[in-house]
Amino acid sequence: MVEIISIGDELLIGQVINTNSSWMAEELNLAGFDVRQITSVSDQGDEIKRALHEASQRADVILMTGGLGPTKDDITKQVLCEFFSTELVINDRVLENVRSFFERKGLPLTQLNHDQALVPKSATVIDNPVGTAPGLAFEHGGKLYVSMPGVPYEMKHIMEHFVIPRLVSQSKGNIIVHKTILTHGIGESFMAEIIKDWENDLYPHIKLAYLPSPGVVRLRLTMKGTDQALMESTLEEKSNALKLLIPTYIWGEGKQTLEEVIGKLLKQKGQTLATAESCTGGFIAHRITSIPGSSAYFKGSIIAYDNQVKQNLLGVEANTLDEHGAVSSQTVEQMAVSAKKLLNADYGLSVSGIAGPDGGTTDKPVGTVWIALARPDGSVVSKKFLFGDQRQRNILRAANAALAMVFIALR
Amino acid sequence: MVEIISIGDELLIGQVINTNSSWMAEELNLAGFDVRQITSVSDQGDEIKRALHEASQRADVILMTGGLGPTKDDITKQVLCEFFSTELVINDRVLENVRSFFERKGLPLTQLNHDQALVPKSATVIDNPVGTAPGLAFEHGGKLYVSMPGVPYEMKHIMEHFVIPRLVSQSKGNIIVHKTILTHGIGESFMAEIIKDWENDLYPHIKLAYLPSPGVVRLRLTMKGTDQALMESTLEEKSNALKLLIPTYIWGEGKQTLEEVIGKLLKQKGQTLATAESCTGGFIAHRITSIPGSSAYFKGSIIAYDNQVKQNLLGVEANTLDEHGAVSSQTVEQMAVSAKKLLNADYGLSVSGIAGPDGGTTDKPVGTVWIALARPDGSVVSKKFLFGDQRQRNILRAANAALAMVFIALR
Repeated sequence: MVEIISIGDELLIGQVINTNSSWMAEELNLAGFDVRQITSVSDQGDEIKRALHEASQRADVILMTGGLGPTKDDITKQVLCEFFSTELVINDRVLENVRSFFERKGLPLTQLNHDQALVPKSATVIDNPVGTAPGLAFEHGGKLYVSMPGVPYEMKHIMEHFVIPRLVSQSKGNIIVHKTILTHGIGESFMAEIIKDWENDLYPHIKLAYLPSPGVVRLRLTMKGTDQALMESTLEEKSNALKLLIPTYIWGEGKQTLEEVIGKLLKQKGQTLATAESCTGGFIAHRITSIPGSSAYFKGSIIAYDNQVKQNLLGVEANTLDEHGAVSSQTVEQMAVSAKKLLNADYGLSVSGIAGPDGGTTDKPVGTVWIALARPDGSVVSKKFLFGDQRQRNILRAANAALAMVFIALR
Repeated sequence: MVEIISIGDELLIGQVINTNSSWMAEELNLAGFDVRQITSVSDQGDEIKRALHEASQRADVILMTGGLGPTKDDITKQVLCEFFSTELVINDRVLENVRSFFERKGLPLTQLNHDQALVPKSATVIDNPVGTAPGLAFEHGGKLYVSMPGVPYEMKHIMEHFVIPRLVSQSKGNIIVHKTILTHGIGESFMAEIIKDWENDLYPHIKLAYLPSPGVVRLRLTMKGTDQALMESTLEEKSNALKLLIPTYIWGEGKQTLEEVIGKLLKQKGQTLATAESCTGGFIAHRITSIPGSSAYFKGSIIAYDNQVKQNLLGVEANTLDEHGAVSSQTVEQMAVSAKKLLNADYGLSVSGIAGPDGGTTDKPVGTVWIALARPDGSVVSKKFLFGDQRQRNILRAANAALAMVFIALR
């Protein structure tokens, strides 16, 4: 059993979101290790020691992040010395690493950075080639404690190169298997009604979780045991039965994203996509281009935030804008056709809507969004959506609905 | 003292990032309440009860989120009944709310949703007009326990309308004051060297934290006490002295973002911005348009992910692309000038680079990014950056550097 302790005042005052612990939990889980608790505590010695003590009562492996940096508010090393009754000493290998790190960057070695080579005497030093603060491992009372920097990619390096391999080499073969089915366009309670009988028939040792986010519900099946092949085939069978119940809502599996799924389909078919965005303001293009290799199928986008741009660049007719407005089937359809043509793509996807908080009218309240798709055969479809009154959520839901529309056309 | 307990297996397997607890911690902190610990535990009754018991040993106020939904994996209500020795009963007001919620959406009331009106008998029911699961408050042993849904905007509604007002009405007037200074373009250890003497001279009761993120370091000063005016003027004085030490790196204060600061400056000056993005793929436009009211100063963008689009739409010369490549001062400068002209804006901002993981060469390794800005007077500047080898991080750093370039031109 593993516990994670995230150290830092910034977490307890909400200035930083604890993405480190989710990433660690996911990696641990995929490797077959249960995380029992994630605890965030402040940069105070007593609190860190208390959290360490409590976690050690419950878990065999205690993973800590944060407070290893070079500045005054970083006190984890001193606290670890107190907790394990040891002292700080200069470690030559770490000093060499710090020195060469700053040399490579052409920067001078300051006293603060020099002091990063101070490590607790009883600790095993874990190399951190991507940063300056090393990881520290302690074995104490049959338990393993690992302290890592809070900088995400430094922590990730130590997790991937030290923690996970070490835990795997000591594990007793217990495995967790998940199967996650990704859906769009149906709320969790309606889904639950449709799949009720299937859910009740799940063996008691299969756990089902509904994970809702704006526009998307993920259904996660979980089994634990030692026979990986058997568990995988059981979950495969169960999820196949599930897919037959809700075929039109499913767009993917596992950790996939809509933009990944679409990217794969476009690549397979050798087709390309371009977008014309108004209310989503580039968010769809951003999501598509966050996928490595997306240049193979994504041509680009025209973000027509201003109506002038819709006219001048996308050639939406002044008439159309006057008569029907920027948020209308007529406007989005012209935008989609233009994006396809101007950017020389097989598909043209367009969005225009009122994200809010301002700009709503009685006819078209905040949350009204039109989405259109121009297809390779020259046809164009459009659809109206009515989302809510929260800007960020509307942008997210519009992007999900737009990507889902492309998915449906491609599948 | 407050503690937050986040309930849900999805947190412990890392499938969901715990943004709820950061948001809550920030709101509590701004209202003057310390969060001592944030704990994430699984959907198991024993774990929830253990976390409740432990938190009640340390804090007076225990806030819980998650597990109140309509589906089978939501067990918080049953667990609360066991913890507080009470039972579930139908609450008519909640039933009415659930009924009208589904009526407004034109959806039927399922049995699962009907059961959301079941609440622990000894709980005070907290209205949730934006969802179906009500909040639940318990007073027990002189402590306050509040259970809220895990859906972020439902939790936020209950925090804003019940929890914060209730805590403020009971508080003894202790206040936390923060001042956060936002910088760009300098690493934390170099900053620490420059401001060393200033930092050492801070009163012992002022706490300084360095909060680094890609390209941006936030410096947060914190004081606690009862005399708000005195604390604010002290922090004002200290931060003014700090600003004199690092004037060129500072772009904002508090919770501002670069896109907000730029938006305000553009609005003040009555000027407009357009972008032309290659490797950032729309992320800059997305950040700018995430600000409500950005349509007043943002014209739009041309996302030229494909070199064809750079030529055809942005008019980058074929010669330039052949001789200097898409990642060059020549190309980004032409892109910036075109964006300014085609989108009829005062400023044209452009980015072209190699985000990775592929596309790097010996001359131009992954992480090479050129950024250009075309200014109202017709001049254009460009600058080369060398970031790292991680795609998402490179996109983020390129966007920050680009927005910082606009800030410098505007200030």
